[in-house]
Amino acid sequence: MPIRATVWNEFVHERENATVKAIYPEGIHRTIAAALSSDEGIDASTATLDEPEHGLSVERLAKTDVLLWWGHKAHGEVSDSVVDRVQQRVFEGMGLIVLHSGHFSKIFKRVMGAPCSLRWREAGERERLWAINRSHPIAQGVGDFIELTNSEMYGEPFLVPEPMETVFVSWYEGGEVFRSGLTYQRGAGRIFYFGPGHETYPIYHDAQIQQVLRNAVRWAHNPARPWLDVSTAPNVPVDQAPEKIEKRGGSLHAAGEEGFR
Amino acid sequence: MPIRATVWNEFVHERENATVKAIYPEGIHRTIAAALSSDEGIDASTATLDEPEHGLSVERLAKTDVLLWWGHKAHGEVSDSVVDRVQQRVFEGMGLIVLHSGHFSKIFKRVMGAPCSLRWREAGERERLWAINRSHPIAQGVGDFIELTNSEMYGEPFLVPEPMETVFVSWYEGGEVFRSGLTYQRGAGRIFYFGPGHETYPIYHDAQIQQVLRNAVRWAHNPARPWLDVSTAPNVPVDQAPEKIEKRGGSLHAAGEEGFR
Amino acid sequence: MPIRATVWNEFVHERENATVKAIYPEGIHRTIAAALSSDEGIDASTATLDEPEHGLSVERLAKTDVLLWWGHKAHGEVSDSVVDRVQQRVFEGMGLIVLHSGHFSKIFKRVMGAPCSLRWREAGERERLWAINRSHPIAQGVGDFIELTNSEMYGEPFLVPEPMETVFVSWYEGGEVFRSGLTYQRGAGRIFYFGPGHETYPIYHDAQIQQVLRNAVRWAHNPARPWLDVSTAPNVPVDQAPEKIEKRGGSLHAAGEEGFR
Amino acid sequence: MPIRATVWNEFVHERENATVKAIYPEGIHRTIAAALSSDEGIDASTATLDEPEHGLSVERLAKTDVLLWWGHKAHGEVSDSVVDRVQQRVFEGMGLIVLHSGHFSKIFKRVMGAPCSLRWREAGERERLWAINRSHPIAQGVGDFIELTNSEMYGEPFLVPEPMETVFVSWYEGGEVFRSGLTYQRGAGRIFYFGPGHETYPIYHDAQIQQVLRNAVRWAHNPARPWLDVSTAPNVPVDQAPEKIEKRGGSLHAAGEEGFR
Repeated sequence: MPIRATVWNEFVHERENATVKAIYPEGIHRTIAAALSSDEGIDASTATLDEPEHGLSVERLAKTDVLLWWGHKAHGEVSDSVVDRVQQRVFEGMGLIVLHSGHFSKIFKRVMGAPCSLRWREAGERERLWAINRSHPIAQGVGDFIELTNSEMYGEPFLVPEPMETVFVSWYEGGEVFRSGLTYQRGAGRIFYFGPGHETYPIYHDAQIQQVLRNAVRWAHNPARPWLDVSTAPNVPVDQAPEKIEKRGGSLHAAGEEGFR
Repeated sequence: MPIRATVWNEFVHERENATVKAIYPEGIHRTIAAALSSDEGIDASTATLDEPEHGLSVERLAKTDVLLWWGHKAHGEVSDSVVDRVQQRVFEGMGLIVLHSGHFSKIFKRVMGAPCSLRWREAGERERLWAINRSHPIAQGVGDFIELTNSEMYGEPFLVPEPMETVFVSWYEGGEVFRSGLTYQRGAGRIFYFGPGHETYPIYHDAQIQQVLRNAVRWAHNPARPWLDVSTAPNVPVDQAPEKIEKRGGSLHAAGEEGFR
Repeated sequence: MPIRATVWNEFVHERENATVKAIYPEGIHRTIAAALSSDEGIDASTATLDEPEHGLSVERLAKTDVLLWWGHKAHGEVSDSVVDRVQQRVFEGMGLIVLHSGHFSKIFKRVMGAPCSLRWREAGERERLWAINRSHPIAQGVGDFIELTNSEMYGEPFLVPEPMETVFVSWYEGGEVFRSGLTYQRGAGRIFYFGPGHETYPIYHDAQIQQVLRNAVRWAHNPARPWLDVSTAPNVPVDQAPEKIEKRGGSLHAAGEEGFR
Repeated sequence: MPIRATVWNEFVHERENATVKAIYPEGIHRTIAAALSSDEGIDASTATLDEPEHGLSVERLAKTDVLLWWGHKAHGEVSDSVVDRVQQRVFEGMGLIVLHSGHFSKIFKRVMGAPCSLRWREAGERERLWAINRSHPIAQGVGDFIELTNSEMYGEPFLVPEPMETVFVSWYEGGEVFRSGLTYQRGAGRIFYFGPGHETYPIYHDAQIQQVLRNAVRWAHNPARPWLDVSTAPNVPVDQAPEKIEKRGGSLHAAGEEGFR
């Protein structure tokens, strides 16, 4: 069965800004979805901010193995209840790939638990993403580095937790560096942050960038059954303890009672 | 200058439950603060849920180097705006020590970005906390392990991110295990989660537990000046790039404009 | 193409000790290889200490995707040059699964860079391995925990580097705990340490243990082409720098000269 | 009591190469020791390759809290038995700071368990070390970055294990990046690798570099008593188990017997 990837996009700048529209006439999400679909093992579809429930209903998320997230201008318009839902699905095992300015999206800040801040400059300068571990599944097929003629600078300090793995580190013409490919695990879900993607440059049309996105979808996919009760704290009654014990001492709870949250 | 530690407590069960009241007549916070104050390098004070702003005003937090957090029944009564404030202070460099049932507190879930769930059993069983790295600053003076005659079982899976360091792992009489001492870094702030502390047993009266708390306060203290703008994403104008570059390509932003959030 | 797994065993106690011989009449390696071969995606073979080059010639290692290592009594008899060779293959991308008393094998100490010491007790006591992340590929199919009626106790402190992922933590009847399933990355190679396996108990006949071994082989397999020059430090001549620069300042090396090692 | 730092240097190029001699007439070790000694909390001394036991006798190491290591041309001349001794002291709690070309020293490869390879270019190009976490103790007082007018390029991929903390990442004029400040823990010892230091440029005369070295000595210092038996694997006899158990099943060892190594 192919991996079911959903590409989410706020889809604002492509409709408001002529430069962006010229590069992504149908929206960034469609360009990315097409790039993913060239891998026959991936079944890619899209969702956008202006759809009901931002296109991320309970049913839709239940059928999503990996969610890609692109947002920039409209982070604040994403409903908290949809973010709750996405976060829970990540905990249950859905993969999450956060792209570029998604570093300040609600969902990324939620799962990082950190400021997620950085420095930036929109100067169309050269970026070179060095593969730190060329044998990592996400870096397959891209060689020593990816070079982007025009890119937005995202610079350190990037205030995220120390990652599970550093996959890419970027060099910028203007003198900065950036950890531009980072992996994390939260609950049963795997998370990949990938830096490049400013909308005024044709970055998602780049063949190597598209290769990384396909790799990342395969990497983030957890084939295990969703861990539906991952966020609950079950009581283990005394008579069901793995070792035989007897209750001693004071107590707050009546037998079988739920814990506080 | 001594380290300024603030011990926060929801202070509910000590007033409602006779067992708890008998153990902590003045509240868990006062027992812990007294234990910390036996270290002349620590200046400990307390704050509780029922104080204005839960005792955690902007001014108070600005004067707190390390915050200890004990909550259980009233997590939901803690105001989101106070949690925002505490989180920002952690990012700026305030240490945070989360105790026992604080695993489900708003602030811990915020900075972990993970479910923070676990299994539990209130049976007064024996717990033995093994020091994984006896040379770690937090484990100084406690020997190979700490043994608690009566403890609440907190068992794996504990759904938190892989820690920076595993300091303690607990064994329980009933057959479970728990990673009961874990360190994290978020922004400029250091975080320590410490498992034991169920309120129906006199755990915070234990000399070794008190030693760990004092050690943890010293470890979590970051003497660097607060990183006040840790959560902002400053633009670096083209003419202030470390290397001389010229702007190229399309643009979304006018010169000097703030980024989106 | 199936994953080529080689099960290495010192194969000493099975020939010297009647208890061990009764459990593993053909050697631990054959029991494990048979367990792996029940997965049609794995092609398992064996190698032992007494074969020429311990069965691990250059050619054999080149055809090994994942190496499993069982040793106990004869760590010192393994030739350093074979260990060099195995280590280099791990760096190039071969997976390595180190079993039980292999914690003190030359190859494990080499790739950990740490003491790898622990406490032990041979009392046939009960061990319960808790799955920390039940959604991890290595823990698939084993449920909440694995229970072994008779096991050797391996206890903390286990002096290894903080792992990439903690997959299992063990509880022992005698009161200790042990991080019994840990993952690491070294160069292009993935490493898994798995604690249970004392030779006087029929542990590798256990269905759940066998499931973990199959899972671990699949997890440790890196399908990328071997990174043959992973250990070399190539010079990048000035005229091949990604950005155009001119040489300045003093120099130790003539143009194109090799670096020191 | 001040921290006792020993600066080790192979001390070869300063005697053979006129450029290096002009920059470090008394040797790199003396320049670094003088920089450390400007901190009244540090008592710095030196040791070199040509001294008996390379200046690192058992007694000398026992009186060293933090060892700094600079080597380049003569890694192969360092005796394995001295490396064994240094490694054991790191495991017991001695801090280790490995400088520049020390990435290929025997001791660094030993404690990393990884290839430690990188790319390099001696072109006197500009390097800019960005502080990833400006609140980290090692980065105190250096601001956003350190800029070196002339430096040797050390580029990714740098084949080391994922660090505990990434403290600095370097940008190079020629287009590469490098994780130039990394922390690790091995046994009771803290390790810091710091990239800059090519001997044909006056890098250790730089005030910010000196500040980092002083900070690193303070960070790497473990005040706990040395963990002398950190590398041994003690048997815990059945009658000394924390919980009362009885021996069951088969056995390899007679009571109280030592384990195999």
